[in-house]
Amino acid sequence: MPREITAYSNPLIKRMRNLRDKRHRREEGLFLAEGLRILTEAREAGRIPDYLFYTAESARHPLVAPLVAATEAQGGEAIETNADILSKLSGKDNPGSVVGVYPEFALELSAIDRSTAPIWLVAERLRDPGNLGTILRTGDAVGAGGLILLDDCVDPFSVEAVRASMGALFTVPVARARWEEFEPWLRAGPGQLVGLSLDTSHDYQAPRYAAPTFLLTGNEAQGMPPHMEQACDLLVKIPMLGKADSLNAAVATAVMAYEVRNQFRHG
Amino acid sequence: MPREITAYSNPLIKRMRNLRDKRHRREEGLFLAEGLRILTEAREAGRIPDYLFYTAESARHPLVAPLVAATEAQGGEAIETNADILSKLSGKDNPGSVVGVYPEFALELSAIDRSTAPIWLVAERLRDPGNLGTILRTGDAVGAGGLILLDDCVDPFSVEAVRASMGALFTVPVARARWEEFEPWLRAGPGQLVGLSLDTSHDYQAPRYAAPTFLLTGNEAQGMPPHMEQACDLLVKIPMLGKADSLNAAVATAVMAYEVRNQFRHG
Repeated sequence: MPREITAYSNPLIKRMRNLRDKRHRREEGLFLAEGLRILTEAREAGRIPDYLFYTAESARHPLVAPLVAATEAQGGEAIETNADILSKLSGKDNPGSVVGVYPEFALELSAIDRSTAPIWLVAERLRDPGNLGTILRTGDAVGAGGLILLDDCVDPFSVEAVRASMGALFTVPVARARWEEFEPWLRAGPGQLVGLSLDTSHDYQAPRYAAPTFLLTGNEAQGMPPHMEQACDLLVKIPMLGKADSLNAAVATAVMAYEVRNQFRHG
Repeated sequence: MPREITAYSNPLIKRMRNLRDKRHRREEGLFLAEGLRILTEAREAGRIPDYLFYTAESARHPLVAPLVAATEAQGGEAIETNADILSKLSGKDNPGSVVGVYPEFALELSAIDRSTAPIWLVAERLRDPGNLGTILRTGDAVGAGGLILLDDCVDPFSVEAVRASMGALFTVPVARARWEEFEPWLRAGPGQLVGLSLDTSHDYQAPRYAAPTFLLTGNEAQGMPPHMEQACDLLVKIPMLGKADSLNAAVATAVMAYEVRNQFRHG
């Protein structure tokens, strides 16, 4: 039976709101996601929240009942609240109709079966949560096996990253590793490491890619460090006609990932 | 001779800081841009700030002197200030070393010569300033003639849009128009209107595009309205393999723009 919380001073609300900070997420092992579309995507992927917050009004939506049922069936708590508290949890004026609090999940490199997908996305020191979420969304679209985050990337469980992923955080596996772990793991099996770089004249459409392709995108401002460039099987560049010397990192990843995917689908 | 401002209460600083709000930008006809890279890009494109703010420390950077000189030569004011004020102007903890205040510029549809470029980007009701800036950056890279913003788009002169454009706001012409103006203008000359849509099975790689191609991207959440879809010469879809039904709008625009550009360069 759902309980009702309407006071912002309620300790659970305060605790959940703190999950907007990385330190609290780390301590609790929980993160926030918002919006019916994203929570439904999560449910369909088998991810059920520990806590589900909704309003009396949103309870009438046909997609909310299955969320409430799934949450309670799995021992979580469904909590009716008001729009003001929902908006404080999400940090948005217009938070959508539901907020879920989920246990963080982690994927070990050793648990990845690279034969399950022809494309894998890899990013190193990604700083922008919007880019991270957008890359996950692209990963879902191109059928990537997962996203491997190298070294000090922004937290994929931040509110901004979850939002930008539009639910892909729940459908695209995310692993985190140091380069020193990743490189031996990569070399212990088949696959080519293709790096996006500005330090090459090799056009991204010239090579014939072979599955599995691991597509490596470097830090937004600096690109990848020299030792990673040297470790790539191939460095490629997306040609640019204008004044700027680089594309947005999520855009470059997408243009590249669609090139690989298009080659695979056309033969 | 540069003047010095170190008090946040200085009326000019207050006035400039207000430019972070759309209403004040509209009243003043001015907008903020930050960072040496972006301001230098602007200078090279012939855009000189009315006001240039820098710190004593940044004054030693070899790219700051030409900015100061250009600003003063054009009757603008170069103002030495401190990092705290720079950061308050930009709204970022780490604002970079310079902030410029520029006159807004506008481009009329009637002033566009479509024969100058094979690709033109068009977006309608774009809501996210990061997407707008990212699309400008992509426009620069693919050699687009400009970006035409239809109906109620987010302000291209917002701090977030300027930042995401990484300087492309200064190099890629931006026009704003209502659909009712755009459609007759478009049809008064050569060019095909290609719309990105989820309501078609037509693969984006199937058509042979012809210059000039006007590439239309719809609103992030809703796509474009039916009357615009009907007005397109061609609706195309980027295939998606995953659970999600759409890509980020800036990503979709880039994947599509590179397909058109690649066809033009290869054939």
